[in-house]
Amino acid sequence: MANHQCDLVVIGSGPGGYVAAIRASQLGLKTICVESGDIGGVCLNIGCIPTKALLKSAEYAHFMGHADEFGFNFENLKVNYPQVIDRSRKVAGQMSKGVTSLFKKYKVEHVTGWGKLTKSKTVEVSDKSGKVTDIITAKNIIIATGARPRLFPGIEVDHKNIITSTDALLGKHLPKSIIVMGAGAIGVEFAYFFNAFGADVTIVEYMDRILPVEDVEVSKELERHFRKSKIDIKTKSMVKSAKSVKGGVEVTIESNGKTEVLKAEMALNAIGIQANIENIGLEDLGINLEKGFIKIDDYCRTNVENIYAIGDVAGAPWLAHKASAEAVTCAEFIAGHHPKPVNYNNIPGCTYCNPQVASVGLTEEKAKAAGHEVKIGKFPFLASGKAHGIGEAKGFVKLVFDAKYGELLGAHMIGPDVTEMIAELGLARQLEATAETIFKTIHAHPTLSEAVMEAAAQAYGEAVNI
Amino acid sequence: MANHQCDLVVIGSGPGGYVAAIRASQLGLKTICVESGDIGGVCLNIGCIPTKALLKSAEYAHFMGHADEFGFNFENLKVNYPQVIDRSRKVAGQMSKGVTSLFKKYKVEHVTGWGKLTKSKTVEVSDKSGKVTDIITAKNIIIATGARPRLFPGIEVDHKNIITSTDALLGKHLPKSIIVMGAGAIGVEFAYFFNAFGADVTIVEYMDRILPVEDVEVSKELERHFRKSKIDIKTKSMVKSAKSVKGGVEVTIESNGKTEVLKAEMALNAIGIQANIENIGLEDLGINLEKGFIKIDDYCRTNVENIYAIGDVAGAPWLAHKASAEAVTCAEFIAGHHPKPVNYNNIPGCTYCNPQVASVGLTEEKAKAAGHEVKIGKFPFLASGKAHGIGEAKGFVKLVFDAKYGELLGAHMIGPDVTEMIAELGLARQLEATAETIFKTIHAHPTLSEAVMEAAAQAYGEAVNI
Repeated sequence: MANHQCDLVVIGSGPGGYVAAIRASQLGLKTICVESGDIGGVCLNIGCIPTKALLKSAEYAHFMGHADEFGFNFENLKVNYPQVIDRSRKVAGQMSKGVTSLFKKYKVEHVTGWGKLTKSKTVEVSDKSGKVTDIITAKNIIIATGARPRLFPGIEVDHKNIITSTDALLGKHLPKSIIVMGAGAIGVEFAYFFNAFGADVTIVEYMDRILPVEDVEVSKELERHFRKSKIDIKTKSMVKSAKSVKGGVEVTIESNGKTEVLKAEMALNAIGIQANIENIGLEDLGINLEKGFIKIDDYCRTNVENIYAIGDVAGAPWLAHKASAEAVTCAEFIAGHHPKPVNYNNIPGCTYCNPQVASVGLTEEKAKAAGHEVKIGKFPFLASGKAHGIGEAKGFVKLVFDAKYGELLGAHMIGPDVTEMIAELGLARQLEATAETIFKTIHAHPTLSEAVMEAAAQAYGEAVNI
Repeated sequence: MANHQCDLVVIGSGPGGYVAAIRASQLGLKTICVESGDIGGVCLNIGCIPTKALLKSAEYAHFMGHADEFGFNFENLKVNYPQVIDRSRKVAGQMSKGVTSLFKKYKVEHVTGWGKLTKSKTVEVSDKSGKVTDIITAKNIIIATGARPRLFPGIEVDHKNIITSTDALLGKHLPKSIIVMGAGAIGVEFAYFFNAFGADVTIVEYMDRILPVEDVEVSKELERHFRKSKIDIKTKSMVKSAKSVKGGVEVTIESNGKTEVLKAEMALNAIGIQANIENIGLEDLGINLEKGFIKIDDYCRTNVENIYAIGDVAGAPWLAHKASAEAVTCAEFIAGHHPKPVNYNNIPGCTYCNPQVASVGLTEEKAKAAGHEVKIGKFPFLASGKAHGIGEAKGFVKLVFDAKYGELLGAHMIGPDVTEMIAELGLARQLEATAETIFKTIHAHPTLSEAVMEAAAQAYGEAVNI
């Protein structure tokens, strides 16, 4: 058994943990990162990164269906689905190795095993058999243990017919039909993915629309495109039970008081996530939770001195970039710097289906509810030359401005490449830019980003191309 | 013959002319737009828009060459090149029709024919036979006649073997080999395009690098990728002559004092553009030129009262979005508003080859020459998870900051989707954002735009992912 002394120990190496460890080390803290699984956490290994690899293949699957429009003819198209998965695994592996290299470069020590806080505020690391292999004494501890798929109560995931996103990412068998339970970002991305590869997809969502956190108009537009792609969407529908049966699954749902039994080869549980708070010693130290997540303050401090929490385990929004932002703030705070707290009002959200969805700030509804008089600017990609050029003239940019000062309150976009275009609006909000600043900034032609400029101008009756 | 009276007549309907006409009409001016060709000018019909359609097909052509990596196998691939061109024409046609609809919506009158200024400051419009069909008397005149490919002196373009970009856009025969004379944006885009479709491509450029207006490192990186794709690049080489011969062309070039004769099926003249200043009555009114372009002031005024010029005919940079920006400023000025002059220091430039190139502001070299002490931030897409996910981990983001105040002086990017990512940096410059503001703004994960945040952080030693 090894004993370690350091300034900071980070439990978990996802986009919260690894970023905190590296930033702390950059600032001169002797830092250890404890990880029981693959370096990089969910994000790099079974989350953001490998899904984006899969979704790129899905985009191409869609393209192959109308390649003749673009001038390509071929015969005997065969989808090598295991290769789709293999490529995604390869990408995940590369990125995980990348973090290992960064740990070396920045002198972050990696200790393998399960990290658990003890009453005396050390971190005990144990191997798979439960044997304690390391004891780490540190001035500060960051808990960055992340989260995992939340399961429906009473529904047993068998990882074969009833699966989680992790199974969907790894499974080399393409289902003929799949019921996606939950229409948040993860559910919607997988619905798009399996549909693009030819599966019959049904989405079941409890709320009245898919992507319920997005602006209402965005949800509607996505629904329209999904229905056009023959995805069956059942909103205001509650999953009552799901069970494996011969040849597949049966999912019983209730919509408007009526019960219906859906059948498919697989069902994907995508109702959300839950924090990894078990068996890491939180109870022994009396660390406060709130709704199942660790409660933190502006500097990611828990209620126990010198113990911090960041990322998914510390609550919503459950996004990698929120974890990384907290990581930097937390590491800088621990190092004695004076970082600004994370600006939770300016965290973009992206869904990488087709059409893509991206947003930042307040929806129209929420802006009004917050008492703002709003001015809305909208521009459809149907009026964008670039969108036609690339054959993706669908969706729109919707900007929400405060009517009084013209400040950008929120941006809501659906369409090609909007997950990249959202960066401009995040910066605009950070700098409290007005509509006029946005539309008087020259945007390159022909780009999709011109739609942002036009939408801002449209709010003030100055759009030329619509 | 018809006589017209109006507040404003605009000669030309490209992204300068049509935008000026619509904006003026929005502001209450009775406006006529005179166009002898297709509505939308070069940009919509034989420029920006149709090339982007072609380049999308080129991207797919590249993909088809390694589709197996993404999980797709097929047999007997055939390129239907006429369809590639047809699709591009269809897109151009749609966009041109779009402007016609906008003219109707905003009550801009369109007069067909060749517009020419007369001594008495009217505009005489004549048909193809030269017969005067309309006389327009207007309080103000905007000249937006654009530009056309500049030809090498002494080289005869036969539009068959020795061609211009217009011929390349319209020709339904894919050459087996082509010599691209000139490595600006147009030359480089066509070099990429023909290479992607399997042609042997040679680029000849007089300067010491391709895309000579871009940052030196960007040119080098693009050159590296082009050479990897087997594009032959001859820089510091002057075209001495080009002539059609049996079965193709012979282009004689001189490099380092040595003469070489290149042979290919076609040669593309892409050395630049020249203004359309002929036969529009400039001489009769004594309108001043500068190096072959109409000289204008901050509000696009020529030296003759009430006569304005915008877009390509009024000088560099020869970009559609510069034309549109001048159009809005000019129309608002004529309408009696007080627009800010166009900010010529903040005009982005994009080249839509693969990897894409985009930039705004000063290159490192120019920033230093202007006396700035600079801080450079760089981030390679090789360290971007999203870039790996989409299989495009090449290129980099390079940001040039003023060392004293951290202000962003310039952004230079090469890689996937950078032509969209540049919008954020344009806004950053418009708002005089500092490096810290950029890297403290949360960027969505996993996006390519994170590279901007990381590059900004890297300049200050705070990048985590590199």
